[in-house]
Amino acid sequence: MLTSIRLSVALTLLVGIAFGQPPRGPLVVSPQVNPDKSVTFRYLAPGATDVKLSAQFEKTPLAMTKDAQGIWSVTTQPVKPDIYPYSFQVDGVTVMDPANVAFFPNERFKASLVDIPGDTPLIHALQDVPHGSVNYDYYPSMAGTTGSLVVYTPPGYDKNSTTKYPVFYLISGTTDTEETFFKVGRTNLILDNLIAQGKAKPMIIVMPYGNIAARIAEQKGGTKPADPTVRDGADAVKRANDFGDDLTGNVMPYVEKNYRTIPNKDSRAIGGFSRGGGQTLRTAFGNLDKFAWVCSYSSYLSPQEMDGNFSQIGGNPDNTNKQLKLLWVSVGSDDFLYKGTVEFMDYLKAKKVAYKSLVTNGGHTWMNVKTYVANTAPLLFR
Amino acid sequence: MLTSIRLSVALTLLVGIAFGQPPRGPLVVSPQVNPDKSVTFRYLAPGATDVKLSAQFEKTPLAMTKDAQGIWSVTTQPVKPDIYPYSFQVDGVTVMDPANVAFFPNERFKASLVDIPGDTPLIHALQDVPHGSVNYDYYPSMAGTTGSLVVYTPPGYDKNSTTKYPVFYLISGTTDTEETFFKVGRTNLILDNLIAQGKAKPMIIVMPYGNIAARIAEQKGGTKPADPTVRDGADAVKRANDFGDDLTGNVMPYVEKNYRTIPNKDSRAIGGFSRGGGQTLRTAFGNLDKFAWVCSYSSYLSPQEMDGNFSQIGGNPDNTNKQLKLLWVSVGSDDFLYKGTVEFMDYLKAKKVAYKSLVTNGGHTWMNVKTYVANTAPLLFR
Repeated sequence: MLTSIRLSVALTLLVGIAFGQPPRGPLVVSPQVNPDKSVTFRYLAPGATDVKLSAQFEKTPLAMTKDAQGIWSVTTQPVKPDIYPYSFQVDGVTVMDPANVAFFPNERFKASLVDIPGDTPLIHALQDVPHGSVNYDYYPSMAGTTGSLVVYTPPGYDKNSTTKYPVFYLISGTTDTEETFFKVGRTNLILDNLIAQGKAKPMIIVMPYGNIAARIAEQKGGTKPADPTVRDGADAVKRANDFGDDLTGNVMPYVEKNYRTIPNKDSRAIGGFSRGGGQTLRTAFGNLDKFAWVCSYSSYLSPQEMDGNFSQIGGNPDNTNKQLKLLWVSVGSDDFLYKGTVEFMDYLKAKKVAYKSLVTNGGHTWMNVKTYVANTAPLLFR
Repeated sequence: MLTSIRLSVALTLLVGIAFGQPPRGPLVVSPQVNPDKSVTFRYLAPGATDVKLSAQFEKTPLAMTKDAQGIWSVTTQPVKPDIYPYSFQVDGVTVMDPANVAFFPNERFKASLVDIPGDTPLIHALQDVPHGSVNYDYYPSMAGTTGSLVVYTPPGYDKNSTTKYPVFYLISGTTDTEETFFKVGRTNLILDNLIAQGKAKPMIIVMPYGNIAARIAEQKGGTKPADPTVRDGADAVKRANDFGDDLTGNVMPYVEKNYRTIPNKDSRAIGGFSRGGGQTLRTAFGNLDKFAWVCSYSSYLSPQEMDGNFSQIGGNPDNTNKQLKLLWVSVGSDDFLYKGTVEFMDYLKAKKVAYKSLVTNGGHTWMNVKTYVANTAPLLFR
């Protein structure tokens, strides 16, 4: 009996739509943020035997309990306002929250997002200020492929105006997609709010996809490349080089042709998170003539790679410091890349390369990424 | 042992990112479209006891089998080229494919998308033609809320040009979001291809969110409204009226201010799928002065509602036929709304209201929606 109920619910959701009038289960409201900032999560699974909540504000999964309708639920303690990824563990299987459309775009895991608002609006909150627009574009990329870009244009980017804007190229992490800085990082709303407060200059933000090899494999019909999560080693460097070549050779020309940009190095910034931070540093250090503003979020290059591939950075610090108007390094104290990042900062210090840094609490998370974007955007193009 | 492996994989995917270096499971490639158009689906779940594939090209779920690594897989028969929603049933729980970023934006279910290409490119395929752009915008909506819109601008919508374009307002179905016509319907690529072939006029397509009551509840902190999937009855009509009021009172003014539109009825079309089709018909029939082109996909109004609320449509067919340059009705022969749609067409015929129709195979699916968009876009603004 439980099985047939469960199946009818499951079939509703997909097959029912195709083959008949969908019988619907009870309406499930999830997540529900309560006035005290606790959150109630609910998941319909009459036939499940064990359902837990995994959320990035909890160190361990929380047990959920089932009601007579088969809806599992749990109410958390009050949570610090922010946007957190979460998922359900249903009999050990990780699932998104089917009642929630806010999701985390990623190639290897699925998570939903819960937004716990502050008593005063947080910097990433949707507020009653002028809004920019987020554009999904295609551009001609490497090896005859078509690449995808997400491009933020600021409020005031009037379609018929002649104002030109500086550009911030912003690269997401391993297994993230070109949507992650928009959907998880809320980069558009952070900028809308900073601009409305007079704290950041209006700018265009270009968010590319970081995995060139995967795109080529997908569009050219080959097999997918070896695990793209492998971060270190020669292959990672080659991929970062491919990425940098595509960024400077294809993305930049597309953007500068199709958007009203100021096409010079003082009006070009580059930043990224995790793998995107590595791509940022490699692309910037290899193209000092193209980017004057460089932001590394939760990432670093090793002293070996710096000395081997970018010896001019530390070897001629006067020139580096003259070329770069900002070199920013940030990391969380619980980040698994914390130690390497500190080593990178020590390297820069020893070589007398100027940089600014921010070390926060927390780990390798998008809560931290939002903080880093909100702290660096005001520094750019000044 | 199996449990601990499974947990380590699950934790990798979410918690691992927060609290340490993510240990990754084996790379899972899914879906993999084979040269003969069969598809191999794979899902990593070492601890699961039963995994099935639910796909809209299969009438019943397909059993999957597990390999030594814990990867479940199944290879289908060759499948007719199209884009299909699918999901996995993991011990009875419906999950998206974690290896696939292509997903179905929806408020009540989760599905991934598999794209089986044709031997010659299908009308929704990414081809080497000039591409338009898809923009995510905010606009001031009802009750002090901020609404979201997805807006397609055609290739040639040069940011500095003065060309003005007609506008097609396109509304998705119950529990869909403003992203569904973009992400599932591939409306942007269909238009890119039709325009490149000279078959459709360049146009702007505006895709709003259909559930005003839910947005107000979400932003104003009330509880969510009663089940938004209830389609019939006075409440559905009230909601359609709210939607129509927002469309004509807020969306249209926003679009006509911020995009280069031709702001008259002959250059305005409205269309929608399922609930969006009902909203289309109600909005169009209540605003004959605003929309000359009307497309109902898999939807209808009952004779009772027509006679009760829109008696002038059938009562003065000469005027209706003069005002509407196109009234299009389409449905699949297996659609659960087929009978009502045929009754609607019979009503129009009896009243001598001119319409065009297309009855296809298949059900209430987005495979059919793509077909309807591809067949109606060429008729608009001629």
